[in-house]
Amino acid sequence: MGAGGNLLVAQSGGATAVINASLAGVVRAALEHRQFGAIIGARHGIDGVLTERFVDLGRQPAEILDQLLTTPSAALGTTRRRLTDETAARAVRILAQYDIRAVAYIGGNDSADTALRLAAAARDAGYDLRVVSVPKTIDNDLPGTDHCPGYGSIARFLALAARDAVRDTEATAALYPVKFIEVMGRNAGWVAAATALGQDGDGDGPHLIFFPERPPRDLHGLLEEVQRAYDRHGQVVAVVPETLKDAQGRPLSGEDLSWTDPFGHRYYPSPGPALTRAVEEHLGLRARFDKPGTIARMFAACVSSVDRREAYEVGAAAVRLLVEGASEVMVTLERVSDDPYAATTGVIAAAKVANRERRMPDAFIGPDGRSVTDAFRTYALPLIDGPLPPYARLLDLPYLRA
Amino acid sequence: MGAGGNLLVAQSGGATAVINASLAGVVRAALEHRQFGAIIGARHGIDGVLTERFVDLGRQPAEILDQLLTTPSAALGTTRRRLTDETAARAVRILAQYDIRAVAYIGGNDSADTALRLAAAARDAGYDLRVVSVPKTIDNDLPGTDHCPGYGSIARFLALAARDAVRDTEATAALYPVKFIEVMGRNAGWVAAATALGQDGDGDGPHLIFFPERPPRDLHGLLEEVQRAYDRHGQVVAVVPETLKDAQGRPLSGEDLSWTDPFGHRYYPSPGPALTRAVEEHLGLRARFDKPGTIARMFAACVSSVDRREAYEVGAAAVRLLVEGASEVMVTLERVSDDPYAATTGVIAAAKVANRERRMPDAFIGPDGRSVTDAFRTYALPLIDGPLPPYARLLDLPYLRA
Repeated sequence: MGAGGNLLVAQSGGATAVINASLAGVVRAALEHRQFGAIIGARHGIDGVLTERFVDLGRQPAEILDQLLTTPSAALGTTRRRLTDETAARAVRILAQYDIRAVAYIGGNDSADTALRLAAAARDAGYDLRVVSVPKTIDNDLPGTDHCPGYGSIARFLALAARDAVRDTEATAALYPVKFIEVMGRNAGWVAAATALGQDGDGDGPHLIFFPERPPRDLHGLLEEVQRAYDRHGQVVAVVPETLKDAQGRPLSGEDLSWTDPFGHRYYPSPGPALTRAVEEHLGLRARFDKPGTIARMFAACVSSVDRREAYEVGAAAVRLLVEGASEVMVTLERVSDDPYAATTGVIAAAKVANRERRMPDAFIGPDGRSVTDAFRTYALPLIDGPLPPYARLLDLPYLRA
Repeated sequence: MGAGGNLLVAQSGGATAVINASLAGVVRAALEHRQFGAIIGARHGIDGVLTERFVDLGRQPAEILDQLLTTPSAALGTTRRRLTDETAARAVRILAQYDIRAVAYIGGNDSADTALRLAAAARDAGYDLRVVSVPKTIDNDLPGTDHCPGYGSIARFLALAARDAVRDTEATAALYPVKFIEVMGRNAGWVAAATALGQDGDGDGPHLIFFPERPPRDLHGLLEEVQRAYDRHGQVVAVVPETLKDAQGRPLSGEDLSWTDPFGHRYYPSPGPALTRAVEEHLGLRARFDKPGTIARMFAACVSSVDRREAYEVGAAAVRLLVEGASEVMVTLERVSDDPYAATTGVIAAAKVANRERRMPDAFIGPDGRSVTDAFRTYALPLIDGPLPPYARLLDLPYLRA
């Protein structure tokens, strides 16, 4: 056993295409630093601590650690449990029984809350425990970091997918003039905005991107916008966050609450079917919706290489911080330069992150509220290995009768 | 102008990730054969003939033809118009005005019908016209060919996506035990079956694949199957074709007809939302659905290289057949060997293809009706550049208290 006791690593919140790269980063760095005894993984985040389901990561074969870099989803399993004072105290007692003195907790805003509660409970118990949060969220809504591991890969997938969906609608606009693409992103528009990153010029779709930061007036306001875009372009590809609400805070699906998670986030039914029906009924335009859903969050075959590398690096950085004795902090990514893109890891107090959200800044949303700015493209393109390779467009060379 | 008059090429039906490779194959082969005068593209299939919207393909720069190989969707635009006797006769008069003597018509079952009607109308008018169909359909349901260009790429996408979705559900089964993946495929299960191609062993998801060839008894029968799979695996990833009907032919969405296309195909609302609701209400299990929709049909970033190459080759083969004087035939793919995979092009009478469907053979569907057989894997894996590279799975090395 090393001088520093044992190290625990856990994964929490929604899984991503690169969260296992962070896991690999933690394990590899811990093996190199040789400051810890065992390297222990908790199954399903804090749940695995409370139920003592631990896996020995230090004894995994090297080739499995290598494969983690290209394996999506959370290899340890994940959770959305929120710690109470009672469960936090119990978790600390269990950590003590396993001589776990350092925790690398991979997750988003809610997971930072879990990490803080764990650290507070340890302090209350007089138990020496360091806890460092490793950022992970496709929503890209963590404060204090330039961007979040996981975002680059969903952004790349959606930039590619939206570009292809736009081409599909172009080819068949007379039959299917309206297409909705329903995307994730919780209360921020970062994920929706990524669908613009494959646009190849003014007027290219998606024609309407709805941001939670710029809600439509109401369902009929949204329909009016679709009609105007149709009048202008002869077709409409519209991107809607699955959580989109109108200006009064009503979900666009017009349906009842589906459930509320332990962190108070409300989940509503998919708006795609309701919007599709409304466009057909009210505008008389045939409409479809695509809902890549969890596939977008998880698609491993075309992750961003920048994202994968950074996900690994924030894991390794967490171990360095733990070795140095840091606690109650989250690793951040600090951008050094846009072109060529460069970033380093930094650090922020976890209290500035937990349960907070960073929404899209005004400078990234176009004045029409339905597009992105060049500033956003400059920000986001390096994160998706962009720009994307161009597609062919036939030259408009009409063939005329002899 | 060459001895053979002008050549027309058109794209029809649902666009795919590789239909432009077939277009490139036609144009490149026609440029090489030098038997035709102009190489003319019709905008939006037969619609572009009737409205005389023609584009000069012979004068497109070489780099655009190259880019077509990696550009999804139909660069010429597509249509689902069905020719009547009157419109077919009118189309032939227009072809004559442009001295078009050869037509390469890229499409599926319905498009083969269009090609035949065009040829018949030309015969009636005493106009010398050759028409060759170039196969294209993600549904893989054309008779007389081993498989259809477009299928390999959607199959590859869905094999990758389903594998990732299964991993996602594994990581979070306690929260979201049930996931539906809604897929295309019209009346055949080929597309749904492809979701099995990333399975890494017995018991790996998707746990239930519903084939149109093996409909569930009714909605409650389907729910019972979901419950049984949940009892067995603790989680369920179920694949449902968007056209899935029950044994009485009722659509699973339980909703009204959305529309009927000119070829008589009926379109119903997406079953994903209805099934998700039913699982939550009747089984008390939280459920989600992913509906990659047109994105799956069109995702260019990870097409099958075999599919792309074959899509090009069937286009080139159509030109050779036209030069040889063939008409009212469709190019086919004939498999020479599974391992190493090899196939050549062949030919079939278009009358054996038009408006007919090839469904999944019994030998490809597991005895439980919800899985695929090794025979299907042997058939399909070469078409998706398979097998897929393996994912990591942590060894089950529990860490026990000292």
